[in-house]
Amino acid sequence: MSHTVHQKDKLIARVRRLKGQMEGIERALEGEAGCGEILRQLASVRGALAGLTAEVMEDHLRHHVVEAETEAGRRHGGEELIEVIRTYLK
Amino acid sequence: MSHTVHQKDKLIARVRRLKGQMEGIERALEGEAGCGEILRQLASVRGALAGLTAEVMEDHLRHHVVEAETEAGRRHGGEELIEVIRTYLK
Amino acid sequence: MSHTVHQKDKLIARVRRLKGQMEGIERALEGEAGCGEILRQLASVRGALAGLTAEVMEDHLRHHVVEAETEAGRRHGGEELIEVIRTYLK
Amino acid sequence: MSHTVHQKDKLIARVRRLKGQMEGIERALEGEAGCGEILRQLASVRGALAGLTAEVMEDHLRHHVVEAETEAGRRHGGEELIEVIRTYLK
Repeated sequence: MSHTVHQKDKLIARVRRLKGQMEGIERALEGEAGCGEILRQLASVRGALAGLTAEVMEDHLRHHVVEAETEAGRRHGGEELIEVIRTYLK
Repeated sequence: MSHTVHQKDKLIARVRRLKGQMEGIERALEGEAGCGEILRQLASVRGALAGLTAEVMEDHLRHHVVEAETEAGRRHGGEELIEVIRTYLK
Repeated sequence: MSHTVHQKDKLIARVRRLKGQMEGIERALEGEAGCGEILRQLASVRGALAGLTAEVMEDHLRHHVVEAETEAGRRHGGEELIEVIRTYLK
Repeated sequence: MSHTVHQKDKLIARVRRLKGQMEGIERALEGEAGCGEILRQLASVRGALAGLTAEVMEDHLRHHVVEAETEAGRRHGGEELIEVIRTYLK
């Protein structure tokens, strides 16, 4: 399981940046920023979230499907990814 | 500008919920939750973010375009929305 | 209604290009092209479709909301756009 | 490679339906249908395209990654899927 530990710090840093962006939107709303500004910040959060999600999906596909240690593990990892792909695309 | 104030509290509450969901993902990563679980949580954040964005876009379209007080204001509000639509769709 | 006629030819040309791309995918499937190739072509259709949709939304926002001739028309045009935004974002 | 042949007919049928939907949009534009109607049809095409793409991605993940016959094939299939995920999410 060294892979989860390995990527963990990088992913946590990205999640914290996203949280910081949400705090920026909260402050913008409290400061009565215009809708245009809020919408630009929301679009930026959306991009960052999609990038993080792609990262976790790639990581999962590489380590829990392609390099899975057992046949059953690979099958399970594949089904988890299919479930996520459906959520995103359908 | 009473409209911004009026919607503000509701929108801030949604942004805070989103921030709470990001904290949940941070804890899940620290607790070494499986990728499948992390991906489900990320998909849930994405849905909440899209819902919030649609809300702000609707609000903007209603109050700053349809009900804009001046012709110039309406034109400006429309251009801001077009910019956002392009970011989301292209 | 001169606006609809004006844009019509350009939009029809884009729809036809999209149809041509779908035919390319059909041929690729019949020719037993690899999944990777099919997926790349599908991603390209998705981009073209999103671009066309953004175009129609912008056109609608400009001509049927911002420049609507009546207050009622503007309100109706705005509600139609809100309905579409919801479909795309929620 | 029996898998490609097996799924092929079903996928081609879906591609043809999509092409039919594009033809419907072409006719709607030629018949000067309202933007609202065109946008609803475009949203419907987008849903059908996403469903088809998810289908091809699942098929690829199952047959060319999880059940790949060689280690190299699995690796190659995984990289192809990662490339597509990046296109869709980033």
